[in-house]
Amino acid sequence: MGGGKRLRPLLVYASALLCGVPVERVDAIAAAIELVHAYSLVHDDLPALDNDDLRRGRPTTHVAFDVATAILVGDALQAHAYRVLATDATLGSDAARRQLVLDLAAASGAAGMAGGQAMDMEAAGSRADLAQLEHICRLKTGRLLEAALLMPSRLAEGLLPQQLVALQQCGERFGLAFQLADDLLDIEAPARLSGKPQGSDHRNQKPTMASLLGREAAHRRLAALQEAALASLAAWGGEAEFLRWLCRTQLRVPGAGPVSDGLP
Amino acid sequence: MGGGKRLRPLLVYASALLCGVPVERVDAIAAAIELVHAYSLVHDDLPALDNDDLRRGRPTTHVAFDVATAILVGDALQAHAYRVLATDATLGSDAARRQLVLDLAAASGAAGMAGGQAMDMEAAGSRADLAQLEHICRLKTGRLLEAALLMPSRLAEGLLPQQLVALQQCGERFGLAFQLADDLLDIEAPARLSGKPQGSDHRNQKPTMASLLGREAAHRRLAALQEAALASLAAWGGEAEFLRWLCRTQLRVPGAGPVSDGLP
Repeated sequence: MGGGKRLRPLLVYASALLCGVPVERVDAIAAAIELVHAYSLVHDDLPALDNDDLRRGRPTTHVAFDVATAILVGDALQAHAYRVLATDATLGSDAARRQLVLDLAAASGAAGMAGGQAMDMEAAGSRADLAQLEHICRLKTGRLLEAALLMPSRLAEGLLPQQLVALQQCGERFGLAFQLADDLLDIEAPARLSGKPQGSDHRNQKPTMASLLGREAAHRRLAALQEAALASLAAWGGEAEFLRWLCRTQLRVPGAGPVSDGLP
Repeated sequence: MGGGKRLRPLLVYASALLCGVPVERVDAIAAAIELVHAYSLVHDDLPALDNDDLRRGRPTTHVAFDVATAILVGDALQAHAYRVLATDATLGSDAARRQLVLDLAAASGAAGMAGGQAMDMEAAGSRADLAQLEHICRLKTGRLLEAALLMPSRLAEGLLPQQLVALQQCGERFGLAFQLADDLLDIEAPARLSGKPQGSDHRNQKPTMASLLGREAAHRRLAALQEAALASLAAWGGEAEFLRWLCRTQLRVPGAGPVSDGLP
């Protein structure tokens, strides 16, 4: 109810369209990924981590309730994600479900989101270089975005191996570009746009890809990554149009000029 | 590596013996439940929750590392539990796996362990009555112990409905008795036995079933629950002997007199 862009569910539906899977069959995937994303926001906002008081323009969970509640809410949201994958009636075969549970657990655990967040905490105040920050970003943000594109393909039939590779490559580039745009937003945008206090990364002395590159180079790299994400989709036709639109509209800094292309 | 009794894995193996499932087939169930239990300990020990500095006689995770790391370690351990259920080769059919994921998520989420822990926090310092505390205990501690007995039965063939009901009843009684014994331990035992500072419940002003009943009545109730848990197993023969032994040895306060029966 609190809003948010629902980017990960949008990617799930975009991937379903691209893979030829009826969109009503991926609701549970979209919900499970958004539940994991929501739990990670509740935990990342905690005083011991990013210490953010505002999220989506509203008080964060630990501010509105307390730290104990925020920890337990996050824990329960994570469990609920797997409950959704286990119970939803439309997901099809039990074999697909097994793969989806594995995809989500791998993307969000120690070798994915949670591990990336731990490395991100360790990098705060350190002299991490660009390669290290990109690796951290890949785990912390990228793996769940990649999962949003990959998981619907588990319900598809007749996808070629090179199509799966291209989809995975698109997800990787999307994740990196998305984080870079978020870094730039943290530097450039007022709080009313980002829904969080301006410059919380800077306040927390966090080196970011954008701060390391500098604003101008960061904008150039963002544009190049957006092009590369779109290039990964070159083999698809109209069925990839929604995903292309997400690449064009989401991989940019809000307020940094007109969108390069309109609605599909 | 840090020890602990591994009670939940022991219950998993005891249930496998009782259900006629080869014990080597339930390793992943035992591991997944212990991973969820371990994550809950790491989070429950945090300053915002029980604020315990010692666990199993060693510094808790947030003391040995920091609060951020403890939060993320718990998050990653939870994800890993589902990864184990999704990947283990011996669990058999994908349909069984789906049920196991559901069992674990239901036992540990908002309607189980995490929800019970939240209610437990809310009850601290309040005038909760015995029925409320028993309900909290059922969710916070009981549901995962019940899952340890129930989950192996998902791999069994030819179990009768009344056998499943009896197993579930045994789990419910076991959970309540186990928490009551833990309450009494917190009142009675020195830190070297419990591995945590004496009286941390009391220090945190937490009403417990034992403090509400009083020590003498609590010991009587513990003995009655132990008998009731054993009575749930009356229809089984030698295949339930390991589970009976766990009821006899685990549902008591360490150091409160001789064990009523020896090793099986």
